[in-house]
Amino acid sequence: MSVSDTDQPDFDAYIATAHALAERAGAVILPHFRAGTAVDHKGGGAFDPVTAADRDAEMAIRQLIAETYPSHGIVGEEFGNERADADYCWIIDPIDGTRPFIMGQPLWGTLIGLTAHGAPLLGMMDQPYTKERFWSGETESYFARDGKTQTIQVRPCPSMSEAMLASSTPDMFTGANERPYARLAEAVRLRRFGGDCYNYCLLAMGQIDLVVETDLKPFDILPLVPIIERAGGVVSTWEGGDPRHGGRVIAAGDPRLHAAAMEMLSG
Amino acid sequence: MSVSDTDQPDFDAYIATAHALAERAGAVILPHFRAGTAVDHKGGGAFDPVTAADRDAEMAIRQLIAETYPSHGIVGEEFGNERADADYCWIIDPIDGTRPFIMGQPLWGTLIGLTAHGAPLLGMMDQPYTKERFWSGETESYFARDGKTQTIQVRPCPSMSEAMLASSTPDMFTGANERPYARLAEAVRLRRFGGDCYNYCLLAMGQIDLVVETDLKPFDILPLVPIIERAGGVVSTWEGGDPRHGGRVIAAGDPRLHAAAMEMLSG
Repeated sequence: MSVSDTDQPDFDAYIATAHALAERAGAVILPHFRAGTAVDHKGGGAFDPVTAADRDAEMAIRQLIAETYPSHGIVGEEFGNERADADYCWIIDPIDGTRPFIMGQPLWGTLIGLTAHGAPLLGMMDQPYTKERFWSGETESYFARDGKTQTIQVRPCPSMSEAMLASSTPDMFTGANERPYARLAEAVRLRRFGGDCYNYCLLAMGQIDLVVETDLKPFDILPLVPIIERAGGVVSTWEGGDPRHGGRVIAAGDPRLHAAAMEMLSG
Repeated sequence: MSVSDTDQPDFDAYIATAHALAERAGAVILPHFRAGTAVDHKGGGAFDPVTAADRDAEMAIRQLIAETYPSHGIVGEEFGNERADADYCWIIDPIDGTRPFIMGQPLWGTLIGLTAHGAPLLGMMDQPYTKERFWSGETESYFARDGKTQTIQVRPCPSMSEAMLASSTPDMFTGANERPYARLAEAVRLRRFGGDCYNYCLLAMGQIDLVVETDLKPFDILPLVPIIERAGGVVSTWEGGDPRHGGRVIAAGDPRLHAAAMEMLSG
């Protein structure tokens, strides 16, 4: 599924573009963080906050992509799809974790992904308030802060009773998802809520063993897939399928834990 | 209950000591954050992680207090009480939010409080990774980051349907606490889990309207009380009593919301 081992002469240029997109998005978003930004409703029954920061950042990202790679496609949370069937397509979510954002918690992030012929080529998560950035190279994953860049790796955790499990919110586990999640939560050492994209990056960094979620959109997870995989982790749907389309997603640092958790979720 | 309006000639010196304690604790704790620190169990049935960072930071804090104010009392999470009946008593929790700490989320904090004859005199919450510090002056509350200090204030939120509610974990709301919490959670605009001491500071900053919790220890809440109150907020037990002893605690930015939420929790 990964194309990280194929020849990508432009890979460095794409990564440089991703860094530039993250910089631009951060510059747009950060002045709105904890600044009393008005919260709009997207409509519909449930509360779905969208802020000016979200929309302005996505516009800035789209503009820079269009200037740099006019033939590339763009799939974004706020403004939909442009040329989504192009060979190269950028998948962007300017503020993944709008809820922590509007509450002032710095666990949101800007997600930037690039697919080549549908397969994840690179991914990036930028947290401009804490000045943390996670991204995938061709074969490894990286974390940068305070001018220092380091390779990151998942940690081994073969035993469910030692595992730390994170999810954004318990509201993800209602209806048919309630019992499978409860089985898993009872089996792990520690489960915690809150975090959104930030948790997947902590998993890639070897701090968390499992992230289990539901109702993800493609742009919520696709930019994170190469970060997780190239740090040594496994990410799939609860049924073991391709996670790129979102839905019910499970990520694990240890492949053995991934297999055991999938069994508990389906069993 | 507050003594902020009484004459405290040494207040500035106490605040300076609190800043020094936070600096020293941060220097001890930060090298352990995301460093693969071993996690011990405190014993008992539930998982209760204690790290070397916790213990080393509390030792460092106790040493500095003993050097500076040998007659003062100390109440801490890890090493119990020393002269807890002294006129002045420091209440410390080196890592409030050990769970986010061991998972790598920067939502934990070092809590430092000082009581005078039992009443909260000052409080401080330091987050050394994000380099954020919240504390109470004699009559106001402050937030500092990147060398800039600003006064913080709660925001008005008279209507429950507009309120944002935060709590550390849904595990706090089992048994007799389940239904009261559920009533409140259904009435607010947005509820979120994760955060520990960080949420109370976001409330003082006007980002969150309600924090509702159970099972708090005195050192979990006492250092936060003056930060909340001097930013204009209200904090009490669910029954409206003194929150200093912990237990079931509710904090609100708007006194009207506090009253309405208390009614829902008891009703």
